[in-house]
Amino acid sequence: MKTLIKNGYIVSMVSDVQKADVLIEDDRIALIGHADESTADKVIDATDKVVMPGLINSHTHVAMSLFRGYSDDEFTLKDWLEKRMWPIEDKFDRDIVYHASLLSCVEMIKSGTTTFNDMYFFEDATAEAVEKIGMRAILSRCIIGEGEQAAERTKEAEELYQSYHNKAEGRIKICVALHAPNTCPPDTIKRGIELADRLGTPIHIHYLETKSEMDYVQETYGTSVTEYLKKCGLFQYHTMLAHGVQINDQDISILKDVSGGVVYNPISNLKLGSGFADVVKLMQHGITVALGTDGQGSTNTLDMFEEMKLAAYLQKGIYHDPTVISSRDVLKMATLEGAKILGMDSELGTLEVGKKADMIIIGLKQPHLNPIHQIEALLAYSVNGADVETSIIDGKVVMENRVITGINEQEIIDTANRLKRSLF
Amino acid sequence: MKTLIKNGYIVSMVSDVQKADVLIEDDRIALIGHADESTADKVIDATDKVVMPGLINSHTHVAMSLFRGYSDDEFTLKDWLEKRMWPIEDKFDRDIVYHASLLSCVEMIKSGTTTFNDMYFFEDATAEAVEKIGMRAILSRCIIGEGEQAAERTKEAEELYQSYHNKAEGRIKICVALHAPNTCPPDTIKRGIELADRLGTPIHIHYLETKSEMDYVQETYGTSVTEYLKKCGLFQYHTMLAHGVQINDQDISILKDVSGGVVYNPISNLKLGSGFADVVKLMQHGITVALGTDGQGSTNTLDMFEEMKLAAYLQKGIYHDPTVISSRDVLKMATLEGAKILGMDSELGTLEVGKKADMIIIGLKQPHLNPIHQIEALLAYSVNGADVETSIIDGKVVMENRVITGINEQEIIDTANRLKRSLF
Repeated sequence: MKTLIKNGYIVSMVSDVQKADVLIEDDRIALIGHADESTADKVIDATDKVVMPGLINSHTHVAMSLFRGYSDDEFTLKDWLEKRMWPIEDKFDRDIVYHASLLSCVEMIKSGTTTFNDMYFFEDATAEAVEKIGMRAILSRCIIGEGEQAAERTKEAEELYQSYHNKAEGRIKICVALHAPNTCPPDTIKRGIELADRLGTPIHIHYLETKSEMDYVQETYGTSVTEYLKKCGLFQYHTMLAHGVQINDQDISILKDVSGGVVYNPISNLKLGSGFADVVKLMQHGITVALGTDGQGSTNTLDMFEEMKLAAYLQKGIYHDPTVISSRDVLKMATLEGAKILGMDSELGTLEVGKKADMIIIGLKQPHLNPIHQIEALLAYSVNGADVETSIIDGKVVMENRVITGINEQEIIDTANRLKRSLF
Repeated sequence: MKTLIKNGYIVSMVSDVQKADVLIEDDRIALIGHADESTADKVIDATDKVVMPGLINSHTHVAMSLFRGYSDDEFTLKDWLEKRMWPIEDKFDRDIVYHASLLSCVEMIKSGTTTFNDMYFFEDATAEAVEKIGMRAILSRCIIGEGEQAAERTKEAEELYQSYHNKAEGRIKICVALHAPNTCPPDTIKRGIELADRLGTPIHIHYLETKSEMDYVQETYGTSVTEYLKKCGLFQYHTMLAHGVQINDQDISILKDVSGGVVYNPISNLKLGSGFADVVKLMQHGITVALGTDGQGSTNTLDMFEEMKLAAYLQKGIYHDPTVISSRDVLKMATLEGAKILGMDSELGTLEVGKKADMIIIGLKQPHLNPIHQIEALLAYSVNGADVETSIIDGKVVMENRVITGINEQEIIDTANRLKRSLF
C-alpha cells in the first residue's frame, strides 16, 4: 500500500520547513521530496497544509476521561485523589476502562496525538481500545502499595506484558509503571525494577510532582526523592519521570546521567496548584524534556497544542525572557523528545525516510492561522487541536478530514455519558 | 424580527445553568424560559448546546493581526516594539488597517467574541470593518508622544468620536486612549483627560505592564506609576487599565476606589516575559478584573477561551491552590466583568431579559467536551474557539454553523497574506 501526501509544508523536526511530497509505503516513510502520483494507491492533497510528525503525549491516564470537569477548583493533589478520584476509581471495571479509553483515543486523534504513554489499571482494556482505533501506545499496569497488594499488581503488570506487548501490528508496547515515590515503598520499587529488568522495558513513574511527596519521602526515608529512587536502583534503567515540578540543582546533578527524561505536564501542574517546573534549566543540562497532559481529571483535555502553548508561555514568564524557549523547542517536546523519552526515537518523532509513518496534516486556511510568517510559530502558538484534519498512524489513515474510520464517534460519547451517570 | 433559540443549556452568568429557550426581539432579549415556536421568524435548535453571553475582549489592537507569528521568541516588550512592531507599523495605512482589522473580526467571531475594546491608529478603518461584519466594539485612536504630535493625535481622537460614536446601529462606541505612563508625559495625559471629560467617554490605557515602565516613571517623575496617573487626574474618570502585571499593595489602595478596572492579558504578559499579574488579590479587594488578548503580535490568537484557561491555571499555580479562582470566575471575566470595565454592564455581559442580544452557541457533541459533569467547567477549561457554532450580535445572526454571513472569508485571508508580503 502506497499513500502519497502531495505538496505540503513539511515540518520534519530535523530540517527547515520545506514544500514537498511524502510517500508512505506500508507502515513507513519511503520518500520526502518529489513523488509521482501514478504509483500511489491513495493521494492526499496537502496544498496549504502542514505535514508534521504525529504528537506524542508522554504521560496520560486515558481512562480518566470520565472525570473531565468533575472536580475542578476544589483540591490540591492529595485530597483530590483521596476524596474525589479514588472513591470513583474503586468502582471502575474492565468495561468502563475500555469505553473511557476509547473516548480519549478519539479525543487524542482529533487533536493530533498519534502515540501516548499511559499508566493505569485494567490496562488490557485500554490496549483493546488502542487496537480498535489504530493508535500507538506504551501501556502499563500501575504498581502501587506494598506487600501482597504490590505483588498482585506486579503480577498483573507482567500478565499485561505477556498478553499485549508488540500486539496490534507492534503498535502496542508494554512497560512497567510505579505509581510514585510516596506511594511505593522500597520493596515495591524493587519489584517494579526486577520486572522491568526481566522484560527489558522502560519504567514510568510520577516524580517530584508536589511538595507533600518530597516531605513524605524526607520524613519516611530521611532522604530526597531523587536520592531515594537512586538508592532503590531505579536510575540504572530507562526512566520516564512524570512532572518534575520540584526538581532542584542536586536532583539535576543525578538526573543528567539518567537514561530517559522528564515529562512536563504544565496544565495539570498549575491546575492542581502543584507549581511550576523549570524545564528550561533541565534542557540546559541536557536532560530530555517531553510533554504530557496527565489525565482529564486534572487537565480537562488531551490537546497537546494547549500544552505546547502553555509550556512556552510559562517558561518565558518564569524567566521574564521570551528567548529562553522557542516554538521549535516546544514542538520538539511534543514529538522528537517524546520519542526519546519513550525510547522510540529511532522509529518515531520526526519525518524521516525509514521511520514509522505517524503524521498529521493541519490545514492553514483559517483566520487564526494567517498571515503566514513562520510556520513553526503558528504550530506552537496559534494552532489548536481542532485544526488537525488528517491523521496517519503506522501508515494507515485513521482520520481523514476529521472523520475517524471504523468507529461511531457519537456512540462513544453517549456511552461515556451513560457510564458517568451510573458512576457518579 | 423574532429569533427563537430552543432548548439550550442557558449559561446566563447570573443564575445556575438551566435548560430553556431564549427569545430575541429585534436587538434585545425578550424572554428566557419557554417560548412558542409559532411566533418566531427564525428558530435555532440549541439541543445539546450551550447558549451563553458573547465574549468581551477588553484589550486589543486588532490591526496587529498581520504580526501574528512574525517575531516570537525574540524580545521583551520595549525592544519588540522598537525593533519589530513600530518600523512596520510606520508603513501602515488606512487600507492595511481595514483589512487587518477585518481578519481579526473574522477570527474573533469564529472564537466566540462579540465585543472588543481596541486601541490603535487609523481606527476609522477598524470602525468600517466592525460595521461591515456586524460586531460590537469600543474603539479609540491611541494618543502618544508629546507637544504637536500629541495635539494632532488628540485631534484625530476627537474626529474619530465625531464620525463614529454610536454609529452602526449603536454598535460602535468611541473612547479616549492614552498609550502608556512611560510614553505619555503629563501634558499628554491631561490632553486625553480633557477630551474624555468633554466627550464623556472612558479612558483606555496600558498600565504597569513591565518593570521598565515602572523604572522610567520613577526616574522621570520621581513617583510610582499609579501615583503619577493619580496626580495627573486620570482616576477621576472611568479607566480601563490594560495589564497591571506589576501592581503592588500601594497601587491597590488607590485602585480600589477607581471606576473601571484592570484588564488581565495573561498570554501576552507571559509571552513577552512581562510577568504574572496577581489578579486574585485584585478581585479580593473588589477591583473589577476583565480579560483581554492584546494584539496578535504578542498573543498569536484572539481566542478568549485560551485566555480564560490560562487565567485560571496561572492563578491556581501562583497561589499553589486550585480553589483561589473558579471556572465561574474566569467566565465572568470574559463576559460580565468585561461589560463592567467597558461601562456597558447595563446592556451586555449576561443573558437577561431587556439586555442586548449578544450571545454565542456552543455545541457539546465533541469528544473533548464529554462526559458532561459541570457545564461551566467545560466552558472554562475544555472548550476552544472552534467549538463556537453560532454568534448573535445585536439580535442579528452574524455566524451560523461557523459560516459568517455577508463576507468572503477566504478573500479576507488572502488579502492579509498579500499585505504581509508587501509589508515585510
